[in-house]
Amino acid sequence: MKLAIDAMGGDHAPKAIVEGAMEAIKQKENLEITLVGDRLQIEPFLTDSHRIDILHTSEVITGDDEPVRAVRRKKNASMVLMANEVKENRADACVSAGNTGALMSSGLFVVGRIPGIARPALTPTFPTLDGKGFLMLDVGANVDAKPHHLVQYAVMGSIYAEKVRKIAKPTVGLLNVGTEDGKGNDLTRRAFRQLQHTPIHFIGNVEARDLLNGVADVVVTDGFSGNIALKTIEGTAISMFQMLKDVFYSSVKTKLAAGLMKNELKQLKTKLDYTEYGGAGLFGLKAPVIKAHGSSNARAIVSAIEQACHMVEYQVTDTMQSTLEQIKGQEENK
Amino acid sequence: MKLAIDAMGGDHAPKAIVEGAMEAIKQKENLEITLVGDRLQIEPFLTDSHRIDILHTSEVITGDDEPVRAVRRKKNASMVLMANEVKENRADACVSAGNTGALMSSGLFVVGRIPGIARPALTPTFPTLDGKGFLMLDVGANVDAKPHHLVQYAVMGSIYAEKVRKIAKPTVGLLNVGTEDGKGNDLTRRAFRQLQHTPIHFIGNVEARDLLNGVADVVVTDGFSGNIALKTIEGTAISMFQMLKDVFYSSVKTKLAAGLMKNELKQLKTKLDYTEYGGAGLFGLKAPVIKAHGSSNARAIVSAIEQACHMVEYQVTDTMQSTLEQIKGQEENK
Repeated sequence: MKLAIDAMGGDHAPKAIVEGAMEAIKQKENLEITLVGDRLQIEPFLTDSHRIDILHTSEVITGDDEPVRAVRRKKNASMVLMANEVKENRADACVSAGNTGALMSSGLFVVGRIPGIARPALTPTFPTLDGKGFLMLDVGANVDAKPHHLVQYAVMGSIYAEKVRKIAKPTVGLLNVGTEDGKGNDLTRRAFRQLQHTPIHFIGNVEARDLLNGVADVVVTDGFSGNIALKTIEGTAISMFQMLKDVFYSSVKTKLAAGLMKNELKQLKTKLDYTEYGGAGLFGLKAPVIKAHGSSNARAIVSAIEQACHMVEYQVTDTMQSTLEQIKGQEENK
Repeated sequence: MKLAIDAMGGDHAPKAIVEGAMEAIKQKENLEITLVGDRLQIEPFLTDSHRIDILHTSEVITGDDEPVRAVRRKKNASMVLMANEVKENRADACVSAGNTGALMSSGLFVVGRIPGIARPALTPTFPTLDGKGFLMLDVGANVDAKPHHLVQYAVMGSIYAEKVRKIAKPTVGLLNVGTEDGKGNDLTRRAFRQLQHTPIHFIGNVEARDLLNGVADVVVTDGFSGNIALKTIEGTAISMFQMLKDVFYSSVKTKLAAGLMKNELKQLKTKLDYTEYGGAGLFGLKAPVIKAHGSSNARAIVSAIEQACHMVEYQVTDTMQSTLEQIKGQEENK
């Protein structure tokens, strides 16, 4: 199995990317990696190039680049060349910690879509209180979704949860403003009816306040609402940690108390850190494309690589494609 | 000034409602209150009926009632009769801690809308890190909003923030998936353009992750996304407190440490408690209608009553109506 990895994307590139790649090679026997990026910047960190080669380019897409334009114009950017390795069948999957929008564009324009999928869905795994985590899609690839898009998300999310996360008969919920049937806006009310006839374990509407309780293994939503939910979770968690910090530093007594449970509080932060759950998959593309978090360290890169490997090994993309074709066939025969 | 109050709505009714009403009367000289509900249940708590009268009814809308149907069928429910006091000009404003959907329906069908407002917006005030708080509307009254609805929310929110929350030139942001101009779905992209020409202090798009940092005094969004944001904030905060509790109870050492800062942690919880900021206004109705939180204690009821009084005193409804008419007139003259 061969992976193409954008060595230049993310806050700690190329160091964290190169170190992550070397670690992944150690852990996985049949893995080969192509690091795409500036050879001069990569080589100082590449202390062991066993099963790792470099595809050199000096062009890079940055966080400030306008995604669609950057992918169209910077044809030799590390991210675009990475996607091209997949398109040309020289790699089975790819991983980047760079500009999210540009990676979506690279996926869309270079790797290409599964036939019948209008737009890929960005799919992170979130932490839950019980540590099991849940998948939410879409969180921003497609901000004007139609009901049948949500059905596709449900199918793709369910397949991923079953094959990669090893959850038997994963529960799929529709993010909505209430749990009762018939609740919601025009989009969710129509999607609800379609989801009832989809061959997945659909459990109905779920509310945002129950997300971190693990109310469903897969939560389906349009990219706009999903993005709001994702960023509200992030923002609320960060704000609460800030408030806690203020409490801890408010007096000698509280400083002492906080010191006593320093390790436990650190564990709490880790529990909420969704980079622990690997990167976000871009589902609906012809090959696995994984978006690692921009702040990824080497360990986060390793888990994003593992995720890509699992998607290849368990033929997730093929299963998504054949299942979606089946559903489409059934609808047409109705 | 006279207020009609639903004595039977909320988890702690009628006790908390009656106690809150008596306390508000003490604090405000020119205030009179009509408590609407079951006289037999109200009177045991009404130890001082100075400037308080009871409008008796034994019918009640519960949390389990389907809102629209309940308001149409239970014509003598405490909530419906309360709204009727406003409609018949026997009260200037009303307050209920009961079923949110039923209160929206009572507002819509009994109190009535400001001409030109399609649907009222449910508008709570949220806590921020700096303690100033911000207004978000709509959080669920209108789940299929159009761009011009968001413009109306912006105007109404801005007027309330200025008149009641005493913020000079309140900043108004549009909740979106990115801060750059041109970001978003069809709804927010169209609303953005209209908001640029609206006579408010529009600061552009704001992201959900910055809400609790107080990124804007007023945050405008459709009822679906607003509801997702509201419930995600609630759910994340509750989950984090649960995780903290688990940390605190994990060992003798952590129990000791948590005990040392018990008071400070309690303050933290209070800081995040948005019942502290009063109830949620239903903006766009002919008179102030305030939804107090279902779990309101007497103190929360007092602040919801104060809020209603301020809206009456500062003629918030009249200002909203005249400003919206002005904007409409300008548009038609273009």
